[in-house]
Amino acid sequence: MAGAAGGRGCRMIRGAQIRDVLDAAHNVLFDCDGVIWNGEAAVAGAPEVVRLLKRRGKRVFFVTNNCTRPRENYVQKFSRLGFTDVAEEEIFSSAYCSAAYLRDVAKVQGKVFVIGCPGVLKELQDAGVPVAEQGDEGPDVSVYNLPLDPDVKAVLVGYDERFTFMKLATACGYLRDAECLFLATDPDPWHPLRGGRITPGSGSLTAALETASSRKATVIGKPSRFMFECISSQFDLDPARSLMVGDRLETDVLFGANCGLATMLTLTGVSTLEDAHELQQSESPEKKDCVPDYVVESIADFLQALEE
Amino acid sequence: MAGAAGGRGCRMIRGAQIRDVLDAAHNVLFDCDGVIWNGEAAVAGAPEVVRLLKRRGKRVFFVTNNCTRPRENYVQKFSRLGFTDVAEEEIFSSAYCSAAYLRDVAKVQGKVFVIGCPGVLKELQDAGVPVAEQGDEGPDVSVYNLPLDPDVKAVLVGYDERFTFMKLATACGYLRDAECLFLATDPDPWHPLRGGRITPGSGSLTAALETASSRKATVIGKPSRFMFECISSQFDLDPARSLMVGDRLETDVLFGANCGLATMLTLTGVSTLEDAHELQQSESPEKKDCVPDYVVESIADFLQALEE
Repeated sequence: MAGAAGGRGCRMIRGAQIRDVLDAAHNVLFDCDGVIWNGEAAVAGAPEVVRLLKRRGKRVFFVTNNCTRPRENYVQKFSRLGFTDVAEEEIFSSAYCSAAYLRDVAKVQGKVFVIGCPGVLKELQDAGVPVAEQGDEGPDVSVYNLPLDPDVKAVLVGYDERFTFMKLATACGYLRDAECLFLATDPDPWHPLRGGRITPGSGSLTAALETASSRKATVIGKPSRFMFECISSQFDLDPARSLMVGDRLETDVLFGANCGLATMLTLTGVSTLEDAHELQQSESPEKKDCVPDYVVESIADFLQALEE
Repeated sequence: MAGAAGGRGCRMIRGAQIRDVLDAAHNVLFDCDGVIWNGEAAVAGAPEVVRLLKRRGKRVFFVTNNCTRPRENYVQKFSRLGFTDVAEEEIFSSAYCSAAYLRDVAKVQGKVFVIGCPGVLKELQDAGVPVAEQGDEGPDVSVYNLPLDPDVKAVLVGYDERFTFMKLATACGYLRDAECLFLATDPDPWHPLRGGRITPGSGSLTAALETASSRKATVIGKPSRFMFECISSQFDLDPARSLMVGDRLETDVLFGANCGLATMLTLTGVSTLEDAHELQQSESPEKKDCVPDYVVESIADFLQALEE
């Protein structure tokens, strides 16, 4: 694609320039939070953008590090926010991909101990991956007698509002066995909430467990390549004809760079144009890979290019 | 001292060699866990070593990153394990020093939000530092409506077996204000338990909060210099006449090096002689600072030197 050939220009584009970029892309991958919607509000114009991209023959995918919902709930959310034509098969969440990794890549022979939310548990269940009991946190349970299930062969960490010290200590107990796999759904350190608040992300809980266990997690979500491999295994994508659109430089844009995709930052979420310029000045190759090829104010800017 | 002048030799010593090292030291600083005791069992000979050191006119201090007890409980534990002559004033825990830091150095003008155990809360209370309510974690409380007390001006993280996601999110909320101080009692990633188990340490919980808040904590415990400054402010110690004895290279020995003390590793705790040799081979100056001047099997080896 033009952008990939021309290097990571961090080029603010609009109108006809956007049309050129979309003409070159056969596949468009969108992050969700901060790109397609913010909380329970669709980004203005986003439903129409998705509809028009599909009408133009593009394949559209949604690639999200948010592990809180199973795919079927994402379909409901898309529908609720006015996206009428999004199918479950087009949605790749870190929860879904983690379950796919455990079943198809790691081929785990045993149970998984989960620090995570219902979305993670449901995807594991749908994939047929057995999950260990969370254990009792009654008054008799302490760090000295935490029960450990000998059938546990993997620990998976995701966003978990019911995270406790005893869950952390239990996971730590399993990871003492070097054969026990250690996975994280995604590396997101925090997530924006409405009103300027934030909530700790999976990456925060993973950091606690990495420190306590002296081990490093295998991260499934962006910027790891695995989510793209997961899509490719089902849809045969050409990276050179694919565009990744996201709002976080260190996850979405780096993911695109890691997978050889053209990358676009949209300014309706976490990262700013100043953040991108700062990374552009860096000498570190890893930071330079976080610089997008293109920048748009919002994916609503696609509308003009698509409607002409 | 001989050891400090001769560089960090990682020299295994016994008998007369130990006597020379002790002769040169006017002050002896001991870590507790893995040095003086393991759990509820004193290291064999340790009570007698402390008694004899004092009889020889040495000043003895106990410098522990363990924040679970207030100083008065340490006195009780010393007494229970056969140490009959240890005074509260000789015990410097990370909980006590954190309270001293907040009151005397940071001079915090407001409340402290604490992730920590009763030992931390008691020391803050004794120091007259006001503590914020932990908040209600009832069914109506979520990350969207966590109550934040406007009087909180500092967050302190220590070992907390009642750590929850909501505590993490609350601390994260306070740290959004760049003026809010961020302290950690100690950096210990985990602690050994009997039976080969481990439990996550303060450093693990701090890592979660550092990741979620995109900030770095000021660490009070070893290897930070502050605990030595805290002792010095009360006892006027000459670092060149002081010996630090510990079982963890990355905390105890590095602490000694950071403060200009002679350092001794004892092999009754976490670190091994192989760990020390590995660090000795490293090119990194920080790692080289974790290499002790001396190594003993146990502080029981002091007995022969002291009894002659």
